[in-house]
Amino acid sequence: MPQIDLPNIAANTPLWLALVTTFVAALSGAILGRQPSRVSYDFVGVAVFAFVLGLGGGITRDVLLGNLPPLALRSPWYVVTVLAAVITVLVVGRWIRVGSWTFILLDALALGLYAVIAAQLAIEFGLPDIGAITVGFLAAVTGGAVVSLMRGETPQILLPSQPYALLAVIGATVYVLLDQFSGGLAALMCLLSVITVRVITVRWDLQTRSVRPLPVDESGDTGEPDAGEPEAR
Amino acid sequence: MPQIDLPNIAANTPLWLALVTTFVAALSGAILGRQPSRVSYDFVGVAVFAFVLGLGGGITRDVLLGNLPPLALRSPWYVVTVLAAVITVLVVGRWIRVGSWTFILLDALALGLYAVIAAQLAIEFGLPDIGAITVGFLAAVTGGAVVSLMRGETPQILLPSQPYALLAVIGATVYVLLDQFSGGLAALMCLLSVITVRVITVRWDLQTRSVRPLPVDESGDTGEPDAGEPEAR
Amino acid sequence: MPQIDLPNIAANTPLWLALVTTFVAALSGAILGRQPSRVSYDFVGVAVFAFVLGLGGGITRDVLLGNLPPLALRSPWYVVTVLAAVITVLVVGRWIRVGSWTFILLDALALGLYAVIAAQLAIEFGLPDIGAITVGFLAAVTGGAVVSLMRGETPQILLPSQPYALLAVIGATVYVLLDQFSGGLAALMCLLSVITVRVITVRWDLQTRSVRPLPVDESGDTGEPDAGEPEAR
Repeated sequence: MPQIDLPNIAANTPLWLALVTTFVAALSGAILGRQPSRVSYDFVGVAVFAFVLGLGGGITRDVLLGNLPPLALRSPWYVVTVLAAVITVLVVGRWIRVGSWTFILLDALALGLYAVIAAQLAIEFGLPDIGAITVGFLAAVTGGAVVSLMRGETPQILLPSQPYALLAVIGATVYVLLDQFSGGLAALMCLLSVITVRVITVRWDLQTRSVRPLPVDESGDTGEPDAGEPEAR
Repeated sequence: MPQIDLPNIAANTPLWLALVTTFVAALSGAILGRQPSRVSYDFVGVAVFAFVLGLGGGITRDVLLGNLPPLALRSPWYVVTVLAAVITVLVVGRWIRVGSWTFILLDALALGLYAVIAAQLAIEFGLPDIGAITVGFLAAVTGGAVVSLMRGETPQILLPSQPYALLAVIGATVYVLLDQFSGGLAALMCLLSVITVRVITVRWDLQTRSVRPLPVDESGDTGEPDAGEPEAR
Repeated sequence: MPQIDLPNIAANTPLWLALVTTFVAALSGAILGRQPSRVSYDFVGVAVFAFVLGLGGGITRDVLLGNLPPLALRSPWYVVTVLAAVITVLVVGRWIRVGSWTFILLDALALGLYAVIAAQLAIEFGLPDIGAITVGFLAAVTGGAVVSLMRGETPQILLPSQPYALLAVIGATVYVLLDQFSGGLAALMCLLSVITVRVITVRWDLQTRSVRPLPVDESGDTGEPDAGEPEAR
């Protein structure tokens, strides 16, 4: 197969694209901080959620790869972008429609970009395909999971819901498989597949199903020291 | 003391042994994902728990030591092993007896191996004994603590319960103290001591005791700005 | 401006000062483990809280900067200091007045030192000013946030309360801005400003205000796939 001549936005992400991604993710985080909930946060809380969602994925990726200090701190623009998102939400937050298609598409684009940039960097650092997919997955979902924990909620990706973690796996897998032919095409297909699957799952409200719990073991077998549940340690 | 000629499984862990360890820990994680609980998880949840318990300890160790990217991502076999554990639990989970002695012994072996491999690597990276014990401890308990947090539970190691964190400290300490004489013997004694203590605590259900809470300070001393509890910040 | 000849305690922190900082923070952590609460912890719990508050900030800083293994593990004294704090709290915990001005001043000093040492190291690692401030902030607040999560509480820094996270930002900012003139003066002014602001906020019980939640969107716009709250992912 001939090399296709598309710019590889995963290997050479233009700064403006990385910052748009960061801005969209940070917006999501700051808006979460202003959702009505059991507790109300102060503006440090809003800013921390924006930071974690905006920069958490990239920092997770760079820590895992040993690419330190993380890119998000080496350039001033990432932190500035997060602060801009925080101010945006504080000032005009009520006009941002998180349920609008515009936001959903931008959010899916951000998810795909996190996954694809992380997978590409992992390949450059010599990881095997399955390691690169894992790094792409972690870069895409860690920020959201940490925000959930700070809000005292179970991370959404663990629960039956519209698939989100799966999108990251699909995106990273598409990229890793196609990258050997053409990095540019791989990045494009990754983003397209993430956005397409996201639109389909939102449009028809497809949900993952819960795994059936194991039956409680009530047999009184001799020699069994403890028939209860395992401890999480 | 003459050098004893045992293979040092901490310094040169055979791949199959590392993978058995990972498999056992990942099994525990995936089974936790299928326990009856307040919420029910989807298969991403089950897989994430398996990943965190199976690979979290090794990744924690490698991040702390700067041994990056972590070993668990540099070889494809670790992720494949975790996926195998996930599929095992999804398909034949009901036949796995987490309370059986077989499982308890394998789990103690996994705990000991995490502690000893991490302590050995820390020594190679030039850490002092007490630093190596700390890394061994963190490698053994971090995965379980993170899973607990994701489940919305207090990590078991912080609560009065059968000692688990202590096993990691004992194991790492035994290894670090004996390693100067013979690495092979040190690794063997570490594993034996962890398994022995684990069996004893399970057999007689020994539990750590809770620390008595401090009395609430009700003195109205002048000049005291705040007599309440400290904040966790 | 001529170079002012003060020793820069951020660039060349005397070991005794670093250990005093660690001791004070670890004391706070261990005391938290003995607060009356929903659950009571065992001594592993008390020790883990002390470790996380005492060493978590420094380890976060070193992981972010790639300064690995972290300083707190490279020297045996940090872990020994934490253990000393744990024993102190277990033995004479009832005599420690966390609400006393002595403790509040020491705690503010610890906060300022975490922020200033981390900011200085970040500058040495080539980060831009805003990256250095971010690292200083994260070094000062991460330990406390993790302890809160392990206790099943919302981290205090996210909630309306006496400003604490802001102190770290102020301290790191003062240091970074003045460091170009004189490192010694910058470190001194950083500590003074943190302690001064802390005393003011405690004395007059100044609190941050909660951010007003966004109105729940109840418009039934056509074409909107989902008007509910965003998911934390």
